[in-house]
Amino acid sequence: MNKAFNKKIVNVGNIAFGDTKPVIIAGPCAVESAEQINTIVAGLSELKVDMLRAGVFKPRTSPFDFQGLGYEGLAYLKEAAQRYHLPFVTEVMAVADLEAVAEHCDMIQIGSRNMYNYPLLRAVGQLDKPVLLKRAFSATIKEWTMAAAYIKSMGNDQIVLCERGIRSFDSSTRNTLDIVAVPIVQKMTGLPVIVDPSHATGRRDLIEPASRAALAIGADGLMIEVHNDPDNALSDGRQSVKLTEFGPMINRLIAS
Amino acid sequence: MNKAFNKKIVNVGNIAFGDTKPVIIAGPCAVESAEQINTIVAGLSELKVDMLRAGVFKPRTSPFDFQGLGYEGLAYLKEAAQRYHLPFVTEVMAVADLEAVAEHCDMIQIGSRNMYNYPLLRAVGQLDKPVLLKRAFSATIKEWTMAAAYIKSMGNDQIVLCERGIRSFDSSTRNTLDIVAVPIVQKMTGLPVIVDPSHATGRRDLIEPASRAALAIGADGLMIEVHNDPDNALSDGRQSVKLTEFGPMINRLIAS
Amino acid sequence: MNKAFNKKIVNVGNIAFGDTKPVIIAGPCAVESAEQINTIVAGLSELKVDMLRAGVFKPRTSPFDFQGLGYEGLAYLKEAAQRYHLPFVTEVMAVADLEAVAEHCDMIQIGSRNMYNYPLLRAVGQLDKPVLLKRAFSATIKEWTMAAAYIKSMGNDQIVLCERGIRSFDSSTRNTLDIVAVPIVQKMTGLPVIVDPSHATGRRDLIEPASRAALAIGADGLMIEVHNDPDNALSDGRQSVKLTEFGPMINRLIAS
Amino acid sequence: MNKAFNKKIVNVGNIAFGDTKPVIIAGPCAVESAEQINTIVAGLSELKVDMLRAGVFKPRTSPFDFQGLGYEGLAYLKEAAQRYHLPFVTEVMAVADLEAVAEHCDMIQIGSRNMYNYPLLRAVGQLDKPVLLKRAFSATIKEWTMAAAYIKSMGNDQIVLCERGIRSFDSSTRNTLDIVAVPIVQKMTGLPVIVDPSHATGRRDLIEPASRAALAIGADGLMIEVHNDPDNALSDGRQSVKLTEFGPMINRLIAS
Repeated sequence: MNKAFNKKIVNVGNIAFGDTKPVIIAGPCAVESAEQINTIVAGLSELKVDMLRAGVFKPRTSPFDFQGLGYEGLAYLKEAAQRYHLPFVTEVMAVADLEAVAEHCDMIQIGSRNMYNYPLLRAVGQLDKPVLLKRAFSATIKEWTMAAAYIKSMGNDQIVLCERGIRSFDSSTRNTLDIVAVPIVQKMTGLPVIVDPSHATGRRDLIEPASRAALAIGADGLMIEVHNDPDNALSDGRQSVKLTEFGPMINRLIAS
Repeated sequence: MNKAFNKKIVNVGNIAFGDTKPVIIAGPCAVESAEQINTIVAGLSELKVDMLRAGVFKPRTSPFDFQGLGYEGLAYLKEAAQRYHLPFVTEVMAVADLEAVAEHCDMIQIGSRNMYNYPLLRAVGQLDKPVLLKRAFSATIKEWTMAAAYIKSMGNDQIVLCERGIRSFDSSTRNTLDIVAVPIVQKMTGLPVIVDPSHATGRRDLIEPASRAALAIGADGLMIEVHNDPDNALSDGRQSVKLTEFGPMINRLIAS
Repeated sequence: MNKAFNKKIVNVGNIAFGDTKPVIIAGPCAVESAEQINTIVAGLSELKVDMLRAGVFKPRTSPFDFQGLGYEGLAYLKEAAQRYHLPFVTEVMAVADLEAVAEHCDMIQIGSRNMYNYPLLRAVGQLDKPVLLKRAFSATIKEWTMAAAYIKSMGNDQIVLCERGIRSFDSSTRNTLDIVAVPIVQKMTGLPVIVDPSHATGRRDLIEPASRAALAIGADGLMIEVHNDPDNALSDGRQSVKLTEFGPMINRLIAS
Repeated sequence: MNKAFNKKIVNVGNIAFGDTKPVIIAGPCAVESAEQINTIVAGLSELKVDMLRAGVFKPRTSPFDFQGLGYEGLAYLKEAAQRYHLPFVTEVMAVADLEAVAEHCDMIQIGSRNMYNYPLLRAVGQLDKPVLLKRAFSATIKEWTMAAAYIKSMGNDQIVLCERGIRSFDSSTRNTLDIVAVPIVQKMTGLPVIVDPSHATGRRDLIEPASRAALAIGADGLMIEVHNDPDNALSDGRQSVKLTEFGPMINRLIAS
């Protein structure tokens, strides 16, 4: 892979995606309460974590599952993030929520299920706010890079891409981490590409090895689900690392 | 397959989805001009066609491809549909367009790329308007039926489902028609399920055999792309049946 | 689909694959005992069944599962088939077994797992015996037709192809019936193509609708697993039709 | 991933698969002539290469493509390997060839297309010779580990597994490297697992990054296609590294 291409740096506060140092993003799948998010952020603030992630609008397969705390959750998240001086990224699903959320967060996430939602891509392309664009679990490389082109075509080129596993025939893992997509898409787009090993594997015990592979292949960052009490998480508990185990893990990853 | 379940009938004008007679929907991929849509609708009105389809908001992989004529196209479509006394279905991608389009069309289509767009599903669930919900090309049966549950949970149960092919490893056809999904989903949901052989195969020569299979397995209707001049269509020409060939085809299908 | 191509007729005794009448093949997944196979064949002989199927060499995922009765089972199968004057097809996995089995059976089956086994394809290509070539569950159309080319390249052109479902991301059914492959492969090869709805769906309740679709799209036959006591079958019981229900089912299928 | 399991060491001459140092296997897709294989082996012998690979029986999709030089090629390969004191692995497809090839080679490869060929697995299980078992491109983790169980059930436990990419919906790369399968299968079986980045990616420019990811996740070795003149190779040229570029690449990989 020829590295002689111009790579875009995307800045979120003091953090630079696409620079030499990989960006570490961590946090729970969802904000569940003021106390829960505060506990987790407090813990993460003492570790080598650059940025927070947590969902307040949760796209769930069933309309009867927990859908997130919405704006109430956003307030809790912002408060915790400010208290511990960490920027945060959170997902928006609806065009109607975009401006209001963008006022408070540091980066907008477009989730896997919305990668083909072109009105949403166009709307986020009109903001002056960094965007984290996850790959749809069934998107070809071309479709994924074209989704970034939708955002860019409206003027916003502060785009970071996130590989999070694709759907395959095997159910041993929740998804199949398409690790080779990272250098392909970096080269095709010139944009930073990070990896989400939590969704890609769906299994706590595979997050560390998958992260090592991601860093070795040149990913510009990692986004990892961390929870203080994964066994009682309202969503995605099985793929969340325990807060107490995350510190040593991230030290091993960054040292290697 | 035990047929002893209550099947919902979804009415669109005089048409009944889910009744004994399969509903035939036909029309071009996109409205391209007033003249084009008028020519096609005039032709279709003389055939055994129950309903029209045509896109005015087109979700395309690239932001630089033809995106549809929007509200101008909607006006052309409505005019042609009224002139020839045929109801029509058209796709909406943005929540913001939903009410305005619903005022003019007879049925709202939620396209394959938006099956996971839960804000859109909830919004269409608040309308009193029949909905055609296409399966995402990577959706499991469960995810597809849960997308219908999102719509229904908001009060709108006038839902027709549409199988349109899933993504597989083979590129001989554009998608892989999952014909067995039809009876499975009919039984699971009690809702009418139709088949779109145009997207499922992507090849004009396979539309008739795929349609025969769909009717044989009990599909409640067919939605077929028909164009007066497929070789010069602005989108999906390769999978569109020529208007002159569509009449004999539909006669063979309905007679069989 | 233009039908103006030369279609090869493959004869097995008095049966003609590729002619106007679809061939019905039925029988258990495996020969389990002399009594079991005799009971099933006796029952099938009174129905509209043209040919028998039963396995004596069973390719199983685990080496610790029932592997078939081998030559002992072949003797039981042959005896039952002769008593009731029905020809039979059975699978061979090893080149070493090919000649010995070919002496007794009427047609050799190359199973899904061995479609890429080129030495076996070449060896069966040297016999003067009809071959039933199943599609591998992950084979592209091209790979499948090229597997037939391996057989034909050695001189044997008595080949019938069998679509039996491909592997996809959805686990609602055991495999995904690729119904559109039937006319594609018929046209590409000129060979008869039949459908195995038992493996394609893996569910008893879906076999009849899948069979209707297969006949409607022009399949040259059906191969269906039938067992006198599916709940106690040594393999594939969940996808086997009960003997007592198979007669009415086949009457409905052929009448339609 | 808990590393507290007993890991089997598989020895091939002085080489130990499963020990701390990853094993580097390199060589052309196929032996094309005495001169070609001698040139490549001479070049590789001066690099950090532990073992050779080259095919003499080539499983090709079409019967009309180059099928390998067979025993003539085996003689060329053995001569070159002995001259430069390197052990070699080569693929066997037919049970009939197994003993004759095993006499000359150091390790038998069971290729991707034969992973479900149970008679071949049983036959290689009766030899006292190390086996390299490649994953079928459509095999689940369970099916792959069960294929190893077939070999082991006959007495041969000198098994090394090789991940070589799975088939997915995207055609950007030849296959999709399932990197996370490496630690899963290591833990499930206790056997060494290596990675073949050449087949997994199908693109020369992706072999080095894919190799870095493989080593980082803990693969016990790499198997890489190297050719002195890839653009004129009889098979797989696009995915072969040039001999002149392979030395620096392997130095970078091992240093990192």
